[in-house]
Amino acid sequence: MHEELKKAVCEANLELPKHKLVIFSWGNVSGIDRSEGIIAIKPSGVDYKELTPDKIVLLDWDGNVVEGTLKPSSDTPTHLELYRNFEAIGGICHTHSLNATMWAQACRGIPCFGTTHADYFYGTIPVTEEMTQEQIENDYELNTGKVIVRRFTDIDPMQMRAVLVANHGPFTWGDSPAAAVEATRVLEQVADMALGTIAIHSNQGPISDVLLDKHYLRKHGKDAYYGQD
Amino acid sequence: MHEELKKAVCEANLELPKHKLVIFSWGNVSGIDRSEGIIAIKPSGVDYKELTPDKIVLLDWDGNVVEGTLKPSSDTPTHLELYRNFEAIGGICHTHSLNATMWAQACRGIPCFGTTHADYFYGTIPVTEEMTQEQIENDYELNTGKVIVRRFTDIDPMQMRAVLVANHGPFTWGDSPAAAVEATRVLEQVADMALGTIAIHSNQGPISDVLLDKHYLRKHGKDAYYGQD
Amino acid sequence: MHEELKKAVCEANLELPKHKLVIFSWGNVSGIDRSEGIIAIKPSGVDYKELTPDKIVLLDWDGNVVEGTLKPSSDTPTHLELYRNFEAIGGICHTHSLNATMWAQACRGIPCFGTTHADYFYGTIPVTEEMTQEQIENDYELNTGKVIVRRFTDIDPMQMRAVLVANHGPFTWGDSPAAAVEATRVLEQVADMALGTIAIHSNQGPISDVLLDKHYLRKHGKDAYYGQD
Amino acid sequence: MHEELKKAVCEANLELPKHKLVIFSWGNVSGIDRSEGIIAIKPSGVDYKELTPDKIVLLDWDGNVVEGTLKPSSDTPTHLELYRNFEAIGGICHTHSLNATMWAQACRGIPCFGTTHADYFYGTIPVTEEMTQEQIENDYELNTGKVIVRRFTDIDPMQMRAVLVANHGPFTWGDSPAAAVEATRVLEQVADMALGTIAIHSNQGPISDVLLDKHYLRKHGKDAYYGQD
Repeated sequence: MHEELKKAVCEANLELPKHKLVIFSWGNVSGIDRSEGIIAIKPSGVDYKELTPDKIVLLDWDGNVVEGTLKPSSDTPTHLELYRNFEAIGGICHTHSLNATMWAQACRGIPCFGTTHADYFYGTIPVTEEMTQEQIENDYELNTGKVIVRRFTDIDPMQMRAVLVANHGPFTWGDSPAAAVEATRVLEQVADMALGTIAIHSNQGPISDVLLDKHYLRKHGKDAYYGQD
Repeated sequence: MHEELKKAVCEANLELPKHKLVIFSWGNVSGIDRSEGIIAIKPSGVDYKELTPDKIVLLDWDGNVVEGTLKPSSDTPTHLELYRNFEAIGGICHTHSLNATMWAQACRGIPCFGTTHADYFYGTIPVTEEMTQEQIENDYELNTGKVIVRRFTDIDPMQMRAVLVANHGPFTWGDSPAAAVEATRVLEQVADMALGTIAIHSNQGPISDVLLDKHYLRKHGKDAYYGQD
Repeated sequence: MHEELKKAVCEANLELPKHKLVIFSWGNVSGIDRSEGIIAIKPSGVDYKELTPDKIVLLDWDGNVVEGTLKPSSDTPTHLELYRNFEAIGGICHTHSLNATMWAQACRGIPCFGTTHADYFYGTIPVTEEMTQEQIENDYELNTGKVIVRRFTDIDPMQMRAVLVANHGPFTWGDSPAAAVEATRVLEQVADMALGTIAIHSNQGPISDVLLDKHYLRKHGKDAYYGQD
Repeated sequence: MHEELKKAVCEANLELPKHKLVIFSWGNVSGIDRSEGIIAIKPSGVDYKELTPDKIVLLDWDGNVVEGTLKPSSDTPTHLELYRNFEAIGGICHTHSLNATMWAQACRGIPCFGTTHADYFYGTIPVTEEMTQEQIENDYELNTGKVIVRRFTDIDPMQMRAVLVANHGPFTWGDSPAAAVEATRVLEQVADMALGTIAIHSNQGPISDVLLDKHYLRKHGKDAYYGQD
C-alpha cells in the first residue's frame, strides 16, 4: 500500500546527499497523501546508503505508525504541524544545509538580493522568533512547527516555500517531496549568494518590488511564461 | 539543416553543469550563423540531462521559431539584442554562476585586481545600471539587452566579453558558443579571486594600466605571443 | 593478533581523505584495546593510498613498538597522553582540517551557535592555551597532550569530543576510531557554519543553555530519543 | 633522450588539474637536468587532456629549443631565471591557484598563522615588490624572475619554496617537478586557512619563532623525525 508515496519519499531523501545538502544521516524528507490521511517520512538516524522505500515509515495525522518497523524521524511532530496548517503542501524537507544554516544561526532572514532568489522565493526568506524555555522543554518538535506557522500568519506558504528556524536551520516544502528538496537546494544557493553579496557591500538592500514581481511571476502563477507548459 | 550550429550550441550548454556554473535547468547558451541569419538557443526550462541537439530551437532575427517544437529560453530577447548590437560575437552565455552573481547582486563592477583577470578581460567587468520600473514591466528581457548595450557605449565587446546585470547575474560572449561558456568560467574564477582579495585588503586598487596592457595584449591582438598560433 | 583493532584503525584513517579532511599523508587516527593495553596508530608520513592494516603500528602504554616495522605517527605521545587521561575514549583523530584549523589558528573556541553544534558537542569547542617555549622545546608532542588534558579539567571529554590546539589544529575522539573520525567531520561542518555565522552577524552570541540541553540530550544520555535504539 | 625528465615533468603538470590548482590550460611545471643543462617545460596554451611526455619542450640554459615541435610556456624566462639563481632546485610550478592568488592580488605576504604552514614553509610566504613600468614593458617574464630573486636576497629558497608575485600569483619549487607541485598544493591550503584566520580574528599575529622552528625542523634538516627515513 502507498508504494508510490514511499518510493517518492525515499527518492527525495536520496537527493539530499547527492546535492551535498546533508552529511551522515542528517536531514529528513516527508510526503503526504491527503486523500488517505497518510504521511510518509524517513526513519530516525538511518544512513542514506541503507535507505530503501520499505524503510520509510507511514503515519496517520496524529503521528501513529500505520506501517513500518522503524521509528520515524524525531522531527516528525514539526512535519505534522506544517501539513496541518499549510494545506497546499505535499512534501517537506528539513536539513542543516551549510549556507542556509549560517543565516539561521545568525537569526537573520535572507533579503531578496537578486533575481535568483526572486525566481523561487517571493520576498525575504523569513526567520522564526527564538523559542522560549517553555517551548523548548515541552513538545519541542511540535513547538518548532508552531513557531514556523505563526511566522507565516501573513505569508502564503506556496509563495514562500522556505523558513529559517532561528538557531537551528531551514525547513522547505512544495507540492511534492521532490519539490521540497529542490527548494532546499535553491535556498542553499541563494543563501550562499547572499553571504557573498554582503561581503562585497555590507549595506546592500533588497531588489525593488517591481523586479521581485517580474521574476517571481514569470515563473509562477497564471501569467508565467518560463518553461514548456 | 544547421546541424553543426545546433550541435555546437548543445555541447556548449552541456559544459555549464560540468563546470558547476548552473544547477537544475538554469542558464542558457546560444549561437548564431550570421550568414544565414539563424540563432540557435536552449529551450526554456529543459534539464541538461535531457538536452540533445534536436531540442535546440532555431530562430530568425525577430525571434520567430524557424525550427524546433519547444519554446526558446525566456531570455531570448536579451540574446537577440546583443547579437544585433555586438556584431563580432558568435555565441552568448547566461548563467547565475555563484561568484559573479554575488558581484551583480552587490551592483559592483569587478575591478581588475590581477593578471588572471587581465589575461581575459580588458579592465573592470562592468555592471549595468539598475533597470527602471518601465523597463522591467514592459519587454523586460529586451530591455535587459538594451541596458547592457548602453553600458558598452565606450567599451569594445570583444575586449570585454562579460557584463554583470545589476541585481541579476552575468552575460558573457565570444566568437562561438564554446568561447562564451569559457568566458563565464573565467569570470567565475576572477569573481571568486576578487572576493578574496577585498577580504584580505578592503581598499585594494586595480592593477596598473601597464600591467593590464601587458597581460591582455600578450594573449590577444596582433602581437599576442601566448599559445601555439 | 589484534587484527580487528588494526583493521578498525586502518579503515578509520581511510575515511579521512574520503571526507576531504586531509591531503597527502596528513592526519592520523589511533585506537586502543584497553584490556590488552595496546594502542594501534597510523605510521608516520605514509600516504593513504598505500595504507593497509598490516602497516598499522601497535604500541604499549609507554609508546614502545609491540608490532610493526614502520615508525608510528610523530604525534603518538599526544595520543598516549589522551588515552591515559580520558579513560572512556577508544579512538583519537588528529587532522589539520580546513575550517577547524582556521579557528585553532585564530586561537578562538567555537561558540555553540546552533543546534547542529549542540547535537554533537555540549558547549563551546575549547581551545588550549598557547604552549610555552619550554613546552615546545622539550617533549613537544607529549606536552601537546598535557595542555589538552589541562583544558579539560572541568569538562567531560565524552560530552566534548573535540579540542582546538592553539596555533595548530583539532584533536577529536570517541568510543572507537570511527567515532573519532565522525567527530572531526562534524567539527569541520560546525566550524564552517560558525565562520559564516559571524560573517553575517559579528556579535552573534551562543544559543541558550536550554536549547543546548534539549539538542545534546535528545541524542546523548539516558533520555535520548534520536535514532533507532 | 631525457625521457625520464620529460615523463616527470608531464606527470607533474597532470597533477595540477587533479588537485584543482588550474582550469583550462592555465599553469605550467618545469624540471631541470643540471648535469646536462637541459630544462623541460610544458608547451604554451596546451590543454592538460592532450598533454603527453612527447609534447614537453626541452630547452638549453638560454631558452633555445633543443627538442620538441611546440612553443614552450610563455613563462619560460621566469623559470630559467629561477633555475640560474636558486641552485638547489630541480622543479618549478606556476599557477593562478585560487587562494594563493587572492593574497598575491592583495599584495600581502601570508603570515605563518599555524603549524600547517610551519610544517612546510619557514616563515611568512613572501610577496614581491610590484613591478615598474620599465620591468613590465621590456622582458616582462625575465623581470618577473628577477623580482622574485631579489626578494630572496636574505631567504634560503629551499626553506621557503614559494613566493607570491604581486598582482599576479604564486611560483613554487622543490628538488623535483613533483615536489614543486606539492608545494603549490600546500600553499593553496595554507592560503585558504590564513584567509579564514583573519576573518575570525583580523589582528591575529604569526606564531612564535619557537613553534615555527619546532614544526619546520621536525620535518626538515638533519634532526627531522617525521616520516619513515
